[in-house]
Amino acid sequence: MFGFEIIKTDGKARAGVLGTAHGEVPTPAFMPCGTCGAVKGVTPAQLRECGTRMVLANTYHLMLRPGADVVADLGGAGALMAWDGPILTDSGGYQVFSLGRLRKVTDRGVVFQSHIDGAAVELTAESCMDVQAKLGADVVMQLDECPPATASKEEVAAAVARSAEWAGRCRQAWQARGRSSAAGAPQALFAIQQGGVHRDLRAESARRIVQLDLPGYAVGGLSVGEGPEQMAGVLDAIDEQLPRERPRYLMGVGEPRDILAGVARGVDMFDCVLPTRNGRNAQAFTWAGRLRLRNAEHARDARPIDGGCPCYTCRNFSRAALRHYSQAGEMLAATLVTIHNLAFFAQFMTAVREAVEQGRLDELAGQWLTAMYG
Amino acid sequence: MFGFEIIKTDGKARAGVLGTAHGEVPTPAFMPCGTCGAVKGVTPAQLRECGTRMVLANTYHLMLRPGADVVADLGGAGALMAWDGPILTDSGGYQVFSLGRLRKVTDRGVVFQSHIDGAAVELTAESCMDVQAKLGADVVMQLDECPPATASKEEVAAAVARSAEWAGRCRQAWQARGRSSAAGAPQALFAIQQGGVHRDLRAESARRIVQLDLPGYAVGGLSVGEGPEQMAGVLDAIDEQLPRERPRYLMGVGEPRDILAGVARGVDMFDCVLPTRNGRNAQAFTWAGRLRLRNAEHARDARPIDGGCPCYTCRNFSRAALRHYSQAGEMLAATLVTIHNLAFFAQFMTAVREAVEQGRLDELAGQWLTAMYG
Repeated sequence: MFGFEIIKTDGKARAGVLGTAHGEVPTPAFMPCGTCGAVKGVTPAQLRECGTRMVLANTYHLMLRPGADVVADLGGAGALMAWDGPILTDSGGYQVFSLGRLRKVTDRGVVFQSHIDGAAVELTAESCMDVQAKLGADVVMQLDECPPATASKEEVAAAVARSAEWAGRCRQAWQARGRSSAAGAPQALFAIQQGGVHRDLRAESARRIVQLDLPGYAVGGLSVGEGPEQMAGVLDAIDEQLPRERPRYLMGVGEPRDILAGVARGVDMFDCVLPTRNGRNAQAFTWAGRLRLRNAEHARDARPIDGGCPCYTCRNFSRAALRHYSQAGEMLAATLVTIHNLAFFAQFMTAVREAVEQGRLDELAGQWLTAMYG
Repeated sequence: MFGFEIIKTDGKARAGVLGTAHGEVPTPAFMPCGTCGAVKGVTPAQLRECGTRMVLANTYHLMLRPGADVVADLGGAGALMAWDGPILTDSGGYQVFSLGRLRKVTDRGVVFQSHIDGAAVELTAESCMDVQAKLGADVVMQLDECPPATASKEEVAAAVARSAEWAGRCRQAWQARGRSSAAGAPQALFAIQQGGVHRDLRAESARRIVQLDLPGYAVGGLSVGEGPEQMAGVLDAIDEQLPRERPRYLMGVGEPRDILAGVARGVDMFDCVLPTRNGRNAQAFTWAGRLRLRNAEHARDARPIDGGCPCYTCRNFSRAALRHYSQAGEMLAATLVTIHNLAFFAQFMTAVREAVEQGRLDELAGQWLTAMYG
């Protein structure tokens, strides 16, 4: 039920198709974040109309509220959020390390304090697979340890070893339940490469997880403040390190510049809160860079965000209206700019894919970067 | 371009059609509030899908922000809010008296302090017509004085006299501009009956405004805390007081019980923030009464708000999901419950109209009231 086919390559870049039980996803693909079981500000019908093909939901948030058993009883994350397309759930690891008040990390797993009610919660490789089986996504992620950007090399090395160990245990738990969700639907497990900005640790991490022969591989621990050059340095090696025939997912990356850097180095999947978070701040992504709709210059501007954009917002609303809604505190501002941003990201990924198909990624990426970032 | 036709009557109740340049509106009709130029939480596409046929926008809010000239430049309130159906704008009077820091009421008009930037703003009968011409709605309202519920009979009498005087001046200004908006579209002017709960003052108010022979008449100054019996007492007389062949609009009323009381006494149009405001508080209207979706009892309830409701929310989301979104602070909770509430109000008005057409309003209203309010 899960598959990945590469249609065309352009250097290390690949245009492909991810096959899931909930439909196909052309790659390179961008997944918006449905953190708590909702892509913030938009209905699934609007999400679909934006061109979104696959969404991410956060295990950490959903296991704490409404709880994995509740989600399972309702028919899984897809039923909860009324999204009939493919879903990927992260492992919860990243959120535990970034949001939770961490209590203890052991070889067994992590104990953290819920940011909602302060309760102590344990997440182990096994329980993380159990929770994700209940959530029922098409793609599930291993539990990994994400050291902070300030961690020493020794700490990063320990995290690499522990994450690889957990990957093996996640694989075991996943196989034990027939690679299926609690409801019996197929689930593909992805392992996560860690190693910070240390090339030897990245290589070691990759070597250990690739042995597990999993359906897909993610690059974790980037976009945490290391800067674009360090990120590119890590990504330079992944085409060698991670199997070419499997999908590669660069976690938490969504700045168009970074997506282009990833695709050029062989990444197939991305996720980020940027289009939704910036949408709520009235910041619109366009081919000419970001538009800050709160600025006074838009107060009487009858033009849409982007005259060439076919999204619902651009077909119907002026920049002046969006600025007014934002000034007036109307939640519609967030919804409308989020719709535009999600549509932009979908169009951007389509353009990136076509560039790969045409063997013009390098040329077009250069033009886009100049237009967007000057 | 503006017309009103009565199709069927049932006692004092009427089923009719309001004709406007932006389409027909079956009556009795409910208008959701697009206070600042947006019906809070929903896109105009969602509004249309809910069955909404006509919306209200607030002159007070729009004249202060983004400003009547900005709205006019953008093509009017309909263009601003991307709503191609009929719009009614109130006069701003009610908001001045309820929201603004009132500075002075004279025969000339009112001077108030903007709640946004504290600036002193004057609203006169003439400027109110000018602003509404710029906003460009299909139906515009006269400036009226709305005394508080605590006002003495003398104060209410003075407000009746002043409002009637302003009605005449509004009519003059409206006729001077050819009964048209700034963009040249037809506008129908409605006068407003005041008089609080005093029958003699209501009669006097009606007598004075009916002389003006306007396209429609509104009942103002109700639903301000006087209670259902006092409201019914005032409404009992309107079929005698206001011309039968003109549409009658009960301002600010939206509780289903009050709508039924109004329709039974000859009211054709209503507006209220109830469906949108309660939607934002996760309170759903149903034929069996209100559902408070924040309550813990819904935490695992896989049923929709109303299994018989055809709205987007009920077709796709469980009560458990809506409760979860509300608990998690997801703005989608507000959007989804608002969608349901707007759809409920549209369905409710359709049922009321059919009851009038079938001569069964009294019988069915009794059943609905029992089911909704016990």
